[in-house]
Amino acid sequence: MDHAKQVVEQILRGEVRAAARLIRDLDDGVPAARAILKELYPHSGRAHVLGITGSPGVGKSTLTDRLIQYLRAEGKTVGVVAVDPTSPFSGGAILGDRIRMQRHALDEGVFIRSLATRGHFGGLTASARAVITVLDAMGKDYVLVETVGVGQDEVEIAGTADTTMVVTVPGLGDDIQAIKAGILEVADVLVVNKADREGASRTQQDLLQMLELQVHRKDPAWRPPVILTQAKENEGIAELMAAVKEHQLFLARDGGAARQRARYQRVRQEFLELLREGVFRHLLQQLEKDGRLAAILQDIVERRTDPYSASEALILETLGPV
Amino acid sequence: MDHAKQVVEQILRGEVRAAARLIRDLDDGVPAARAILKELYPHSGRAHVLGITGSPGVGKSTLTDRLIQYLRAEGKTVGVVAVDPTSPFSGGAILGDRIRMQRHALDEGVFIRSLATRGHFGGLTASARAVITVLDAMGKDYVLVETVGVGQDEVEIAGTADTTMVVTVPGLGDDIQAIKAGILEVADVLVVNKADREGASRTQQDLLQMLELQVHRKDPAWRPPVILTQAKENEGIAELMAAVKEHQLFLARDGGAARQRARYQRVRQEFLELLREGVFRHLLQQLEKDGRLAAILQDIVERRTDPYSASEALILETLGPV
Repeated sequence: MDHAKQVVEQILRGEVRAAARLIRDLDDGVPAARAILKELYPHSGRAHVLGITGSPGVGKSTLTDRLIQYLRAEGKTVGVVAVDPTSPFSGGAILGDRIRMQRHALDEGVFIRSLATRGHFGGLTASARAVITVLDAMGKDYVLVETVGVGQDEVEIAGTADTTMVVTVPGLGDDIQAIKAGILEVADVLVVNKADREGASRTQQDLLQMLELQVHRKDPAWRPPVILTQAKENEGIAELMAAVKEHQLFLARDGGAARQRARYQRVRQEFLELLREGVFRHLLQQLEKDGRLAAILQDIVERRTDPYSASEALILETLGPV
Repeated sequence: MDHAKQVVEQILRGEVRAAARLIRDLDDGVPAARAILKELYPHSGRAHVLGITGSPGVGKSTLTDRLIQYLRAEGKTVGVVAVDPTSPFSGGAILGDRIRMQRHALDEGVFIRSLATRGHFGGLTASARAVITVLDAMGKDYVLVETVGVGQDEVEIAGTADTTMVVTVPGLGDDIQAIKAGILEVADVLVVNKADREGASRTQQDLLQMLELQVHRKDPAWRPPVILTQAKENEGIAELMAAVKEHQLFLARDGGAARQRARYQRVRQEFLELLREGVFRHLLQQLEKDGRLAAILQDIVERRTDPYSASEALILETLGPV
């Protein structure tokens, strides 16, 4: 317990090595790490979490790199969580791709973690949130969460940030790769990167029009702006950060009412994700221990029952009626 | 009940309209549809399920189209499940992309369904499997399941087919887009499509070498071949189908022992997926009904507890110790 308290204090002081070790231990499912995470939780909630999502190839990593640079020049501390759902092998490739970002590795004010697998929490969302909690508790002013906007999980993770940026590029107008409806819904700020390419202002207009027609929004009182950037040339970054800060101000209005509403949604999602994985794992352990799982599977394989009836019966027996 | 029996019989006879309606109802969560699915289940398990996965742009849809054509020429009946995790909007785009496949729409021996969302089962895998069960029960000889090899779910779906094809293209050698380790593990047959491009035989050699070094395989007794195709030009399709049939023969050896092992794994995964979603939904309904969820979330928001401790306590209280 003394050791745990010590680690908690190290992380609260922002010590990088203690945080890195904790994140690794969380991923490995070390029980003591989870206890420390619980201690850290009440100290989180102060960082501004910035989600950055979009299709592969739109320049998310370069943009993230520029945002780090900008925020550091302002004297802000930054944590980065890079989420990719693919396997360890491609994780390697991604790290290669992130070499640019790694130039911040020597900067004490920046802390970058990659997240490639579902990890011990079973869900990518829960794993990502655990890392965000650690970076937040470290006292980072901003936590940037970069995700590939492909799977539902990745969109979800970026979508529950305080401010979510959705990045696209010109000329993807009607294409499937452009802006998926589900992605647009989570956007607080839209970015048209590589804006020197032909059709940038057309894409901007298209997006503004899509936003007009949009029914579902995170917060109906906020109208997402569409910002043009050229991340590689470091252009439009100040404009983008101004839009982010405008959104921060919006969230802070009326004593932070909008921020509170958004955070409640995030807590709800976080709790339910943990519950979903946890209750399943616990039940699975029970079923494996007492041999019930093997018996049920045999019944299904031999077609004495079907998986639908078998799972319904088991759930009703375990939890009782609603 | 009489109506349900009637629908079951229509589907077992292979009637397209009854099957289409059932799949739509399953997606909408109509309770009667689930009852029909249970009735159909014992009649499934006869189709050979063929998974087709790979990165976007490798030509999976064209390949699927050619395989349908080939199998139809052999007089086989074919069902197709096209899985894409993105939102309804991109679903539209995908349908556009599948116009080529739609030329089979007038062929009574082919039945194609797209699956764009998690649907009522909550999980993409469970939804896909429900559709596969329906097509299988319809009496289709082959059920082709085409998924984008990006998210873990999509790989999982393709990976639990009887025979899984992983499609790539030349020149992606060391690239992240090429062959992810997780994807390689599920492959029974590897396809290098667009084989007229430079580097095709190099890619073939690379893949064979990767397979040599591979530790985890679906079945250690099967060595996945690497087939070169040009789907657009209809080249290599016969060779590819020969490889698929070789794998079918492998599965049928020794009274179908390998097939049985694989099917047990599939049943296990199917049951656990249903259980995972079902137990969570049931519990969530209970928590919402008796107001416990709101109370817990308030406790977390006001930092009287954290989501980790709160979910653990609730799970232990609900299920008891392991």
